[in-house]
Amino acid sequence: MAKRNEEFVTHIASRTEDFPQWYTDVIMKTDMVDYSDVRGCMVIKPYGYAVWENIQHELDRRFKETGHKNAYFPLFIPEHLLQKEKDHVEGFAPEVAWVTHGGSEELQERLCVRPTSETIICSMYSRWIQSYRDLPILYNQWANVVRWEKATRPFLRTMEFLWQEGHTAHATSAEAEAETMTMLEVYRSFMEDFLAIPVICGRKSDKEKFAGAVATYTLEAMMQDGKALQMGTSHFLGDHFAKAYDITYLSREGKLEYCYTTSWGVTTRMIGGLIMTHGDDRGLIFPPKVAPIQLVILPIAMHKEGVLDKAYELKAQLAAAGIRVECDDSEQSAGWKFNEWEMKGVPLRLEVGPKDIEKREVVIVRRDNHEKSFVPMENLVDFVKSMLDTVQVALYNRALALREARVSVVHNTDELNARVQDGFAKAMWCGNRECEDKIKAATGATTRCMPFNHEPVGETCVCCGKKATAVTYFAKSY
Amino acid sequence: MAKRNEEFVTHIASRTEDFPQWYTDVIMKTDMVDYSDVRGCMVIKPYGYAVWENIQHELDRRFKETGHKNAYFPLFIPEHLLQKEKDHVEGFAPEVAWVTHGGSEELQERLCVRPTSETIICSMYSRWIQSYRDLPILYNQWANVVRWEKATRPFLRTMEFLWQEGHTAHATSAEAEAETMTMLEVYRSFMEDFLAIPVICGRKSDKEKFAGAVATYTLEAMMQDGKALQMGTSHFLGDHFAKAYDITYLSREGKLEYCYTTSWGVTTRMIGGLIMTHGDDRGLIFPPKVAPIQLVILPIAMHKEGVLDKAYELKAQLAAAGIRVECDDSEQSAGWKFNEWEMKGVPLRLEVGPKDIEKREVVIVRRDNHEKSFVPMENLVDFVKSMLDTVQVALYNRALALREARVSVVHNTDELNARVQDGFAKAMWCGNRECEDKIKAATGATTRCMPFNHEPVGETCVCCGKKATAVTYFAKSY
Repeated sequence: MAKRNEEFVTHIASRTEDFPQWYTDVIMKTDMVDYSDVRGCMVIKPYGYAVWENIQHELDRRFKETGHKNAYFPLFIPEHLLQKEKDHVEGFAPEVAWVTHGGSEELQERLCVRPTSETIICSMYSRWIQSYRDLPILYNQWANVVRWEKATRPFLRTMEFLWQEGHTAHATSAEAEAETMTMLEVYRSFMEDFLAIPVICGRKSDKEKFAGAVATYTLEAMMQDGKALQMGTSHFLGDHFAKAYDITYLSREGKLEYCYTTSWGVTTRMIGGLIMTHGDDRGLIFPPKVAPIQLVILPIAMHKEGVLDKAYELKAQLAAAGIRVECDDSEQSAGWKFNEWEMKGVPLRLEVGPKDIEKREVVIVRRDNHEKSFVPMENLVDFVKSMLDTVQVALYNRALALREARVSVVHNTDELNARVQDGFAKAMWCGNRECEDKIKAATGATTRCMPFNHEPVGETCVCCGKKATAVTYFAKSY
Repeated sequence: MAKRNEEFVTHIASRTEDFPQWYTDVIMKTDMVDYSDVRGCMVIKPYGYAVWENIQHELDRRFKETGHKNAYFPLFIPEHLLQKEKDHVEGFAPEVAWVTHGGSEELQERLCVRPTSETIICSMYSRWIQSYRDLPILYNQWANVVRWEKATRPFLRTMEFLWQEGHTAHATSAEAEAETMTMLEVYRSFMEDFLAIPVICGRKSDKEKFAGAVATYTLEAMMQDGKALQMGTSHFLGDHFAKAYDITYLSREGKLEYCYTTSWGVTTRMIGGLIMTHGDDRGLIFPPKVAPIQLVILPIAMHKEGVLDKAYELKAQLAAAGIRVECDDSEQSAGWKFNEWEMKGVPLRLEVGPKDIEKREVVIVRRDNHEKSFVPMENLVDFVKSMLDTVQVALYNRALALREARVSVVHNTDELNARVQDGFAKAMWCGNRECEDKIKAATGATTRCMPFNHEPVGETCVCCGKKATAVTYFAKSY
């Protein structure tokens, strides 16, 4: 068994030596995901899907609290419908999967498998909205979408992925902009409080914005290799889609007006973000709020009388208090179990053996810093609840400190290039696409966002030296 | 406003005069669903989707209680994978949507949009299962599927629909058969207790069984027009798929054995079943457990002082007790609101006006039988909870009585033909496909199922007069 333990641990690559390999090792060995027979499509295994269920449950609650309702729209979009918004079709057509046959029949019009649903949803809104009384419409959909990607990686970029897409229609531009910002804030607080991932919120450049949007707002997180991961986006679509799909309403004054629309989405990609933000060389580390299992009980010397009974009793007690708890009563060695559950990222491990039972206490070990506590059994539930909160905050703070240590202000492209090797560069930018392209060619970094209300860090563009218009984060990204 | 009320009601066709039109009127006018620009695909609007959310939530809980876990498998299935199980591909190939292009590229191998996922899931199980220790695998997936149907009707038969599909693998045939039955019972109790729809459980004929199954078990409900609706199925797949996809395991004795698999599913079609079981000429009637809104508060003379405040107070009180409650404080007339919420099938209506407030009571009206109660405000929560239970049971009993009144034993095809005009015929059958086909040609009725443990109702086949082998239900169906 000793040999197996060793193998088990050494099979995970080290983060500093090979971060991409570490990522693949961790997601595969913890049974989060598997590759399928379909190029670029993944299978989300129960341990990975449980994370998505927790994310869905919490986000759905927050969407409903802010007045949104769920609906479901068709998977297929007729080609003529996709064509109506010019920028949108240019952006998405190259990465669309086309259905051309139903059974043995060739279709008269090709159907696109939705890469996003603005087109089909706007065509319905056009029918449903007649009067100002019908507004706002605040709908969300949980669904799968398909984008024909060349290079894929589980969770981060796959041909098919799961997501939610909110689509709203409003009477005025100001209301639609306010909705865009409301949802950005829903995402921010969810990511920071629930996923323990600090994010930088800001506006995307014209080059990086959503195809068809007036403005795209984004939430950018820094992974442990210093690269950026776009965690979610909220789009202000102005009247672009309303004009293309003829979404009009009769105003209170009896005038026919165009609506203003928004869309916003997050995906299973956030699971990749969780892994790359919190994991270490022993495997996953889940923040307690999103963890499929929050505490695992390992009975020590479990064949001794009373040990298993006590373990089951503690499990029942914790479960009754609403804690997601498992008891590993399998025949594996204690050492194997330690490694296994560390690798699986369970925030707390509880050990209970004959001696502990004698002393009426248990041992609790934190996954994030290996700190050990001896806890009287009568205080167990309170201790665990409070410790889960502590771990949640500690993980957020650790991720924030890591990010802060790797963000710096840069004043020229050499500095920028050096910084984006393992972090984010904060710089002034003139706002021109030409400089954006030059920087990408020279450093591999893209503009991540122009953050809100940041003090200028200079007056001239980091690239061309002309007058700068905005503070901008540059980074390499997933 | 009076005129509008009248129109509103008369726009629903009568069930007895035109049941299909009644169905369409009800689902469209209550905003459950809408047609889309894609032939045969529906949009599920928030009021319809809320029903699906309640169904999902309850079923998911029951699946997890019986040891199942959720996972997610790809939408696309490569053509070669679909081909492996001969009966399965013959059954499904004619109704499959084919993806042939990704972006501007033609694919080397066509991808089928999943009509069901046995093929892709079995190909994964083949990799995941090595030893008896890996068994059983008890996974479920919530997903969309596509079947290229010619004639479609919202909820009942659409090209794309939402469902869950359970897929399990076991070491022995007996275990797999037991699982098939366990899930049939999970479905039965869910349908009867939660949806208040009585169902007849039994085995499908070879003609009607799932393509590739050894045996298909079904749950059949009678709609108000006397037609059958197949509400769900549970399939024992034997080792058919295990052999086709090479799912083997090393037994405790070190022998390589094939697994035995099952699959089982229910779909958004159940929502159609809910509507056609419980609705009346005024519109929908939801059983309380599945109702998106369980009680609606209508403030009477709501501009008088204190009325709205009281209505909001009652709403808060009921919501805090876990009741799904809405308060209609819109500017519509009371008459319009009565009609609207009756049509929407909300089980209980609460009226509160100045006189009620004076007497410290409210009026509660049942949707199912229009019975009115005067309820002291201090007993409100208890009364509502108990009345919701009462309505739930009453709806089940009403549906059961309707079904019992329309099932009869028949001894020849004339009797059978007469009975299936508005009900189910129970008859003896020889089990031969020839008689099944003859009966269908003569009466339009199909075998619905061979129920469990029913006493024989004769000795000879209703069609050919030869020795009968099983009691069988015949009916026209959706």
